[in-house]
Amino acid sequence: MYVAIMGYGVVGSGVASLLKKNHEHIVKKSLQDAMELKYILDRRTFPGDPYEHLVISDFAKIVEDDEVKIVVETMGGLHPAYEYVLASLKAGKSVVTSNKELVAAKGCELLKVAEENDVNFLFEASVGGGIPIIRPISQCLAANDIDEIAGILNGTTNFILTKMISDGMTFDEALLLAQRNGYAERDPSADVDGFDACRKICILAALCFGKHVYPDSVYTEGIRKITLADVEYARVWGGVIKLIARAKLLEDNRVAVMVSPAFVQNHSQLASVDDVFNAILVRGDAIGDVVFYGKGAGAMPTASAVVADVIDCARHMTGKKFFGWQDSEDGYVASYLDTKSSFYIRMTAENAAGALVQINKAFGEVSMLTRADAPDGEFAFVTDVISEKELAEKLPAISLANAESVIRITDY
Amino acid sequence: MYVAIMGYGVVGSGVASLLKKNHEHIVKKSLQDAMELKYILDRRTFPGDPYEHLVISDFAKIVEDDEVKIVVETMGGLHPAYEYVLASLKAGKSVVTSNKELVAAKGCELLKVAEENDVNFLFEASVGGGIPIIRPISQCLAANDIDEIAGILNGTTNFILTKMISDGMTFDEALLLAQRNGYAERDPSADVDGFDACRKICILAALCFGKHVYPDSVYTEGIRKITLADVEYARVWGGVIKLIARAKLLEDNRVAVMVSPAFVQNHSQLASVDDVFNAILVRGDAIGDVVFYGKGAGAMPTASAVVADVIDCARHMTGKKFFGWQDSEDGYVASYLDTKSSFYIRMTAENAAGALVQINKAFGEVSMLTRADAPDGEFAFVTDVISEKELAEKLPAISLANAESVIRITDY
Repeated sequence: MYVAIMGYGVVGSGVASLLKKNHEHIVKKSLQDAMELKYILDRRTFPGDPYEHLVISDFAKIVEDDEVKIVVETMGGLHPAYEYVLASLKAGKSVVTSNKELVAAKGCELLKVAEENDVNFLFEASVGGGIPIIRPISQCLAANDIDEIAGILNGTTNFILTKMISDGMTFDEALLLAQRNGYAERDPSADVDGFDACRKICILAALCFGKHVYPDSVYTEGIRKITLADVEYARVWGGVIKLIARAKLLEDNRVAVMVSPAFVQNHSQLASVDDVFNAILVRGDAIGDVVFYGKGAGAMPTASAVVADVIDCARHMTGKKFFGWQDSEDGYVASYLDTKSSFYIRMTAENAAGALVQINKAFGEVSMLTRADAPDGEFAFVTDVISEKELAEKLPAISLANAESVIRITDY
Repeated sequence: MYVAIMGYGVVGSGVASLLKKNHEHIVKKSLQDAMELKYILDRRTFPGDPYEHLVISDFAKIVEDDEVKIVVETMGGLHPAYEYVLASLKAGKSVVTSNKELVAAKGCELLKVAEENDVNFLFEASVGGGIPIIRPISQCLAANDIDEIAGILNGTTNFILTKMISDGMTFDEALLLAQRNGYAERDPSADVDGFDACRKICILAALCFGKHVYPDSVYTEGIRKITLADVEYARVWGGVIKLIARAKLLEDNRVAVMVSPAFVQNHSQLASVDDVFNAILVRGDAIGDVVFYGKGAGAMPTASAVVADVIDCARHMTGKKFFGWQDSEDGYVASYLDTKSSFYIRMTAENAAGALVQINKAFGEVSMLTRADAPDGEFAFVTDVISEKELAEKLPAISLANAESVIRITDY
């Protein structure tokens, strides 16, 4: 059996080296006589690389080679990954991808094409790096109606928040450190503005609830505005701030999906997830809360998830592992304004006493939080559970104070 | 497709009710037209039970009925579960079990019989209740060489230890509460003496490292001897005491397997696993540490794992999911005396100064731990990493003190 890799970057080269390092074990698990890498597609050349002789720049060679049964897509980005994957599936090749952008945008369509062509389209590595999550949801938790899924899905932002919480770094300092360590890109927007976590929660929501969730329908808020004052108030409250991506099935069979910073209680399994680690919490009717924890990124963890999918494809050249989800109609994702939670609000006011009267009028009784060394005129409180819409209506009524920070409070 | 359940206790009745509650969803996931419960085998009768009419007491009815394709074994115990499972597999029926005693004692043989008869033998529910762990290890982590696996595998002991740590209860008080809450049996030995955790780590070790591990070859120590003084010293040290079951592949391809109380650092993902929850840590070469967390027992979580296996059997009536392990030779499990770790040791002495001289002579420099309100003559310390054998040789040299407690220290 022959395999081709498209995209010889961090993950692609990890896949190649893992296929070599654990070769015997992988062939045995695959129930094949052999499992060899035949092509590596990349525009670049790699002089001196052990696989230099396999590198090609022409995709047609892969798609036209009937010996290649499994194509690994680790190029990232939507184009030409989408076109290449589509053509590979239509040519009767199973495809394994680590590309969350591709699955979040086109998963529904590609799964359908895979089924029509009697091949597999697997993407365990697209969420949570090496943490097994796609397969446990689709198989192990198959007996459950899943109610809700939530997680820390982006290692870069979790590293930054951990440095703010544990070492008292500011956001800017922590971001710089993340960039120096290679955890954040020079343009960190995909991570710090929440887009990466958004794509991943869309994939998980589709898998759990059966319909595609498009990233642009999801309210997404990043961590740029989090300050050390907020971190300290979270500590006083009894928790930590994490970037939480979450999806919940509503009673009318629509879904609420959101990415935002959130207060998480210290005793939550998500609170102790530090540095670049990820964790995913699945709440099922039969099983209760189950949490999966591990390294959400990095060459080898992600490559290990890709190779596990390759093995699964090899084992299922017949007897396909079809799973999929339907496309979704407009309005399937509920407006974020209908989402309810408690809110932490930090404000500053010249006339704090007057502002507090307005706050009590708007929000009723609130729980005040106090911190040592708070500057004059700063105060913070936690509201009852209200909808985002109510919050948006109430906040302008506090005319005597400025809202410096508003952070949702979770119940995980 | 028809299913039979053998053993209508807590788990068996949970399976029956889950098959009914999520019936539509389960049939769809199974890729079957129908999935109906046909028999429930139990010696007892269940007047008024919704499935009263399905209850039979004669196993022959199940084994001789060709319509029954999947048999669920939730009887527990070794006999007659073993004989019934063996006969079912030989009659061409797939078997799903939650019975860790059966899998730990006979897994190797039953997997072989299943393969010979072209049927499946699945046991996800035998470890970790509803937490997906067997399938992730055999599939998702297939690309990894797994080096080590460790976990909190028994909810009863974890509940007792949590009550000792958080509420200052003694072992006896906490055990009584566990019995009142239905978490512990009247005879709690299988839980508190570590035998239940031992069976589970044997199953996990077999799956990870490819050879059967027999429970009687594993050094197993329970939590009866843990005192509140030990709990306090663990806190001073910076951690908590947990009952940890662990298995590690050695360089000579033998395995070290042990069940014992252990100090776990506060920042470990295992430290925050409280009450009846379980967690399993898998350390792979490519993926690093992955942790699976959830409810390790209870009717519905365990039933959900059983039903997921039933669905998997139904989907694989052709294209079997064979996995298995070899039998093991004598000496495959290394003597626990070769295992190395740091040790926490609590002692009492009339002549503490003299005892300390002996300790330094035997162990070299040690880290002393102190607690408030320690009785006169009590002291505690942590040794360097030494083997169990060295410990056993050194302890008698401390003739001036009594060793009240010896607890291993983990590096998870």
